[in-house]
Amino acid sequence: MPAYAPPLADLAFLLHEVLGLERAGLPGAAELDRDTTAAILAEAGRLAADVLAPLNAAGDREGCRIENGGVRTPAGFPAAYAAMCAGGWTGLDCDPAHGGQGMPHVLHTAVGEMFVSANMALQMVAGLTHGAVSALAAHGSAEQKALYLPPLVAGRWTGTMNLTEPHCGTDLGLVATRAEPAPDGSWRITGTKIFISAGDHDLAPNIVHLVLARAPGGGAGTRGLSLFVVPKVLPDADGRLGARNAVVAARLERKMGIHGSPTCEMRYEGATGWLVGEPHKGMRAMFTMMNEARLGVGLQGLAQAAAAGQAAAAYARERLQGRAATGPAFPDRPADPLIVHPDIRRTLMDIRAFVEGGRALALWAAMLIDRSRSAGDAGAEGLASLLIPVVKGFLTDKGFEACVAAQQVWGGHGYVEDNGLAQYVRDARIAMIYEGANGIQALDLVARKLPSDGGRHIAAFLAEVRGAAADADPAFGAPLAAAAADLEAALAVFMAEGLRNPDAALAGASDFLHLAGHVALGLMWARMAAAARAALEAGRGDAAFLQAKLVTGRHWMARHLPATALHLARIRAGGATVMDLPAEAF
Amino acid sequence: MPAYAPPLADLAFLLHEVLGLERAGLPGAAELDRDTTAAILAEAGRLAADVLAPLNAAGDREGCRIENGGVRTPAGFPAAYAAMCAGGWTGLDCDPAHGGQGMPHVLHTAVGEMFVSANMALQMVAGLTHGAVSALAAHGSAEQKALYLPPLVAGRWTGTMNLTEPHCGTDLGLVATRAEPAPDGSWRITGTKIFISAGDHDLAPNIVHLVLARAPGGGAGTRGLSLFVVPKVLPDADGRLGARNAVVAARLERKMGIHGSPTCEMRYEGATGWLVGEPHKGMRAMFTMMNEARLGVGLQGLAQAAAAGQAAAAYARERLQGRAATGPAFPDRPADPLIVHPDIRRTLMDIRAFVEGGRALALWAAMLIDRSRSAGDAGAEGLASLLIPVVKGFLTDKGFEACVAAQQVWGGHGYVEDNGLAQYVRDARIAMIYEGANGIQALDLVARKLPSDGGRHIAAFLAEVRGAAADADPAFGAPLAAAAADLEAALAVFMAEGLRNPDAALAGASDFLHLAGHVALGLMWARMAAAARAALEAGRGDAAFLQAKLVTGRHWMARHLPATALHLARIRAGGATVMDLPAEAF
Repeated sequence: MPAYAPPLADLAFLLHEVLGLERAGLPGAAELDRDTTAAILAEAGRLAADVLAPLNAAGDREGCRIENGGVRTPAGFPAAYAAMCAGGWTGLDCDPAHGGQGMPHVLHTAVGEMFVSANMALQMVAGLTHGAVSALAAHGSAEQKALYLPPLVAGRWTGTMNLTEPHCGTDLGLVATRAEPAPDGSWRITGTKIFISAGDHDLAPNIVHLVLARAPGGGAGTRGLSLFVVPKVLPDADGRLGARNAVVAARLERKMGIHGSPTCEMRYEGATGWLVGEPHKGMRAMFTMMNEARLGVGLQGLAQAAAAGQAAAAYARERLQGRAATGPAFPDRPADPLIVHPDIRRTLMDIRAFVEGGRALALWAAMLIDRSRSAGDAGAEGLASLLIPVVKGFLTDKGFEACVAAQQVWGGHGYVEDNGLAQYVRDARIAMIYEGANGIQALDLVARKLPSDGGRHIAAFLAEVRGAAADADPAFGAPLAAAAADLEAALAVFMAEGLRNPDAALAGASDFLHLAGHVALGLMWARMAAAARAALEAGRGDAAFLQAKLVTGRHWMARHLPATALHLARIRAGGATVMDLPAEAF
Repeated sequence: MPAYAPPLADLAFLLHEVLGLERAGLPGAAELDRDTTAAILAEAGRLAADVLAPLNAAGDREGCRIENGGVRTPAGFPAAYAAMCAGGWTGLDCDPAHGGQGMPHVLHTAVGEMFVSANMALQMVAGLTHGAVSALAAHGSAEQKALYLPPLVAGRWTGTMNLTEPHCGTDLGLVATRAEPAPDGSWRITGTKIFISAGDHDLAPNIVHLVLARAPGGGAGTRGLSLFVVPKVLPDADGRLGARNAVVAARLERKMGIHGSPTCEMRYEGATGWLVGEPHKGMRAMFTMMNEARLGVGLQGLAQAAAAGQAAAAYARERLQGRAATGPAFPDRPADPLIVHPDIRRTLMDIRAFVEGGRALALWAAMLIDRSRSAGDAGAEGLASLLIPVVKGFLTDKGFEACVAAQQVWGGHGYVEDNGLAQYVRDARIAMIYEGANGIQALDLVARKLPSDGGRHIAAFLAEVRGAAADADPAFGAPLAAAAADLEAALAVFMAEGLRNPDAALAGASDFLHLAGHVALGLMWARMAAAARAALEAGRGDAAFLQAKLVTGRHWMARHLPATALHLARIRAGGATVMDLPAEAF
């Protein structure tokens, strides 16, 4: 399998030429000039390529197991995780008050892509810990922050999210795990949680579980849920580890992929926990970190596609098979490399146009989160909340497709596990499911985010798109304007149908998410093309890199953006054929 | 995992209401009235559901291994394979002169779908044997036919195809395996073949390898290849097994799926073989069986989608999660079943419209093969040769997508291996790759089949589509006519570009295959709708089944057929963005 090459030039282009990181007015960003980010990204890229990536296939093959009552991760994972912590990567964008480095979330996202490309299973531990940090930072008491945040930010302890139970995943209103108050102000948590990533492992001596449970007096449904912090090992007030808590990883799931990530069934048997935030407001605390978590999962789809696309391109350049349709390209060799064949080249360009556009979208969304957090920018917050389901749903659906396409370039050798392509496909598959299955993302987008604040966020997004289309040269502007018109027409359908016939509107929810995703990447490509042209005119940067940007962008505009018309046709078809058959007919 | 339910009603509808099997004038088909086919299909369905399907997950989990120099298949596979042979299923459409039952290929295809849905890995052995029968029947000498066909038709011996080598899959001109003549008229075969399905196993005492190799005097490239029959165990003239031949399965591949099918690296070390057909005409012999083999692989995509779709529908009806958007459907239960949710229902309808349309296409293609074989119908042969790459490429690409969609309905439980959905996805994936990767199917369609015989076959197909559109009611006729216009417009692009710029034309090959696939399923749906309406008017059949056909057909026409416009847009985009970057830019 080819080595992983961190996309340093593309990340630098996005951060500085497209997003203007150093001029964005974000805390910690003013010092991030080109040289500084280049040094940070190169260091992260070295860790990804040299330490994380070499363990990816072996971790998949070995998997995790329960031994002596605890989970053992694949060989090399503890040392690699320790290297991530030692480099300060786990707390890159965390508050310096808790030991973080105070850098913007957008830089954390750029680094995260490389770590996920290199080893998704291992990076998940850091991702989940980061989510726990955000939840505790937003909702924890002063004591909880002092106790838990420093070790979590440093990665010395790790975090988990415990939501799903055997009978409920999406529908958390059915959660049955109970919390009973103890006289000392703590709580006793009892119940079974499933699909808990990194619920147990051997990477750190303590694991901080955040658990949704039902405390007395909250009533039924999601409104009755509270959030608790339940450490695996009970720390004293100074963080010294004491007794083992009454929570165990009882079983590991046998999964299609992410074998290096232990997916645990957690049994809470009167485990000691402490309430985080207000009672019966657990869902609100979850929502706080949802944008960040869903961006992280969208990034997984993108990062797997990026890594798989690299492997496909490398193979297409090396593997000799057949002759170019226009005559032998290398008459002295027994055959031409695969890359001379138009259908192979089309596949590589499809992957590339998605990956580079998706990378821009993920970084833009991260920067909107930065703006909404640190600058209190309500417009950025609204736009981020609108875009997050698109980032999650579109980047994971299309990222998986890109992995499948990359595998196809390898032919039968892609189906063989030894070459790594199958693992990208299997690992990427989960990102379409967890952190809210993509159908839920579509529902969130259409039923919640579109009407939110009187439709202001989608109007703001459309205004950005319209503006970019007007400023762009025709190869970018015309298709973008057409796609924007499709988006507006779809909105008109929802406005007409929405109240009258919710089923008809929701039958088009996934198509709307994909329509919006295509437009969002179209917007990114218009911006990237403008930035590339400006850099070329200024004589800044690598001309070949910038010219390739323009070609790749035109590929997206000509071959992918027209999908908006298909999605619009489906949205207009409404719910008739979708809902007409009785359930018994299935 | 839900039990597999054979689609008996749908197969009967297609064979009798749509294809008019008993009136088709095929040898052996006149006796196939509704009762007879119903009895045959029910018997095959029982074998599929009761014997093959229960071994599918266990076979995936256990896999194959090499033990004492031979391959051992999963527990239960030898007995299940023996049951297939005992029922006469391996020779259903074979010549009675060789012990076959002389039934049409279309019936074999209907039975094959059920076997593949139930256990793709095991059915592959029978599928490969069938291919060897066809090749030997068409090209073998009288002695070879007498020696090999009876045990192959009965399934007592099995067959393989040996084409691929480590350095060549698609490009068989690079084959290096050598054949040297021996004084007794036999040949000594030496070389390494890889990816040989069922290259060794414990299901039968002998395996008949058909091997492409290079005999002296043939020159370079594919024209220098000859076809040899190389039995694992050397039989005497009466078929009694004697000495072991010098061929071994040296290694098994570790694959993403079809774990129950041993994928072997075969080492030929001066193995004894006999020439099949004329020297240096091996590729021609391969092409003889290619239509049948590619139809069989297309059927795999369809059959995995059919089985996965059943599992998704069963789960959607049972799993309680969330409430209907229009208010609780089952207020007395803790939640409504998934099937009330429009996005879930859309997913199920997408799968269903593809599966039922794809099933019709596979059976139609099989009947065209019947017509071309037995009735010597040149028009049917031409249409079959045109449609086969579409059947193979479209049914496997979309079949895989349908498996992924079915897995999505199961959420996290679909990602867990125990529930069987992941296996459908992993198994279906290979069908896009082997027997000519789908990019090769697209190339075959555009570069070979379209221009073949002066474009007569595509013209015949378009005439069928135009005729069906004109006869259909507007819900079917209007979208079908629009799709046909897109197909014609795409052809115009190829005619204009083809000679001038082959790269530009081939950059649109995969899109053309998908465009044609959508139209082909549109044609099938127009025919099925007409047949359903005729049966309803005549008061024949199950009215609910027939009404569901009409709804499902409208779903395809409204939500999937419009994809032709997107494919046309990509074809029109030509090769510019596809071919512009230098290979070094990747």
